[in-house]
Amino acid sequence: MTDDALLPPEELHARLEAIGAERYHVHHPFHHLLHGGKLSKAQVQAWALNRYYYQASIPAKDASLLARLPTPELRREWRRRIVDHDGDGTHPGGIERWLKLTDGLGLDRDYVVSLEGLLPGTRFAVDAYVNLVRSRSVLEAIASSLTEMFSPAIISQRVSGMLRNYDFVSEETLAYFTPRLTQAPQDVDFALSYVKREARTRAEQEQVLAALRFKCSLLWAQLDALHFAYVEPALPPPGAFRP
Amino acid sequence: MTDDALLPPEELHARLEAIGAERYHVHHPFHHLLHGGKLSKAQVQAWALNRYYYQASIPAKDASLLARLPTPELRREWRRRIVDHDGDGTHPGGIERWLKLTDGLGLDRDYVVSLEGLLPGTRFAVDAYVNLVRSRSVLEAIASSLTEMFSPAIISQRVSGMLRNYDFVSEETLAYFTPRLTQAPQDVDFALSYVKREARTRAEQEQVLAALRFKCSLLWAQLDALHFAYVEPALPPPGAFRP
Repeated sequence: MTDDALLPPEELHARLEAIGAERYHVHHPFHHLLHGGKLSKAQVQAWALNRYYYQASIPAKDASLLARLPTPELRREWRRRIVDHDGDGTHPGGIERWLKLTDGLGLDRDYVVSLEGLLPGTRFAVDAYVNLVRSRSVLEAIASSLTEMFSPAIISQRVSGMLRNYDFVSEETLAYFTPRLTQAPQDVDFALSYVKREARTRAEQEQVLAALRFKCSLLWAQLDALHFAYVEPALPPPGAFRP
Repeated sequence: MTDDALLPPEELHARLEAIGAERYHVHHPFHHLLHGGKLSKAQVQAWALNRYYYQASIPAKDASLLARLPTPELRREWRRRIVDHDGDGTHPGGIERWLKLTDGLGLDRDYVVSLEGLLPGTRFAVDAYVNLVRSRSVLEAIASSLTEMFSPAIISQRVSGMLRNYDFVSEETLAYFTPRLTQAPQDVDFALSYVKREARTRAEQEQVLAALRFKCSLLWAQLDALHFAYVEPALPPPGAFRP
């Protein structure tokens, strides 16, 4: 196969899987510490507090994509993601469920939502995601959502490990994750079919792969920032959350 | 003084200085290791390689501000900064001088310029700076340049410490920094007068202070990423420069 030949869909799929195998943050030391029960409650608080900004920003990135999708079918599909995160006013969405987690960890909700204690590294990485989705093609924006191909594995590892290892978390605290186990595969089915179908040149396929690598790197960088600030050397930057 | 009273210019100045005293990256452990001679050549390479992206992005942020400045006087002042970094085709600018540093450290110039080995944390922090300057007010954009109030101190510490402690750097390798010792104060004189004069409400003065804090945090976050990847736990993310 020459370097500019279109990849068969199953080969594109295999290369996407390979990116996850190498770069998904399931391989990050902070993740191992988190689900392995090696973190203090304060360190888990720092994780939940920072990850809140990621959760809270997802609908902004999805809405900016929604605004650029060309058909009712595509927009309905993507609108569902916003409902999943923002809720419908009766059933809580992902953001509200994440705040149940930060509540359960004893963090003040106003403080979490204020973002005052956020690590700058978290902010920059999350904003990079929103900016990618705003500024790149619809194809790349949809491809960047494909980290959900790998998330059911990390979620089940995280939930079972955290329940086993921390007496300060409960199934109720971790209720965020349960619906994600069914939502994520549904989202992935759509996005994967889309990129397989719509990447019509090898250059576009390479854009798809690059978008997924970029997304992996921004999830990874969030854990780097947490690790540096709260594990080793455990030096939160001025202004950030101090346990 | 009530919380919404306009600060006298000297008080605004003092509060800007106080932000530097607390948050400038001269206090970061990576900086201490760097000028204290505690880093290996490979770690100094990683620093120079990553910092290249910051240097290379400065004219992009200055040009986006230039495009929004309203008068020839302001644009001439800001254009000078672009000349300082891009050179005039005869005298090398800051970017070219930075590449002399990476050359001197034995890094392949094509590799440096390709950004292939860049840490994602560097990219996100630097892009956050360019995005701030693009998206916020001219006042905030100019205020974000005020970290140069603090840079002559860090530059002289860095240069003398690195010359004393590393046999792989020379005055020629570090030639980037010499002109900055005169350029930075000139830039600061302008920017500081500007924000003192143009921040006409307390709310605008608070925006000035917030912009400087934001800028400090993105310089700090770049050293966090370097420290995590190359010092402790010394785990560069997939795809990043490996010595």
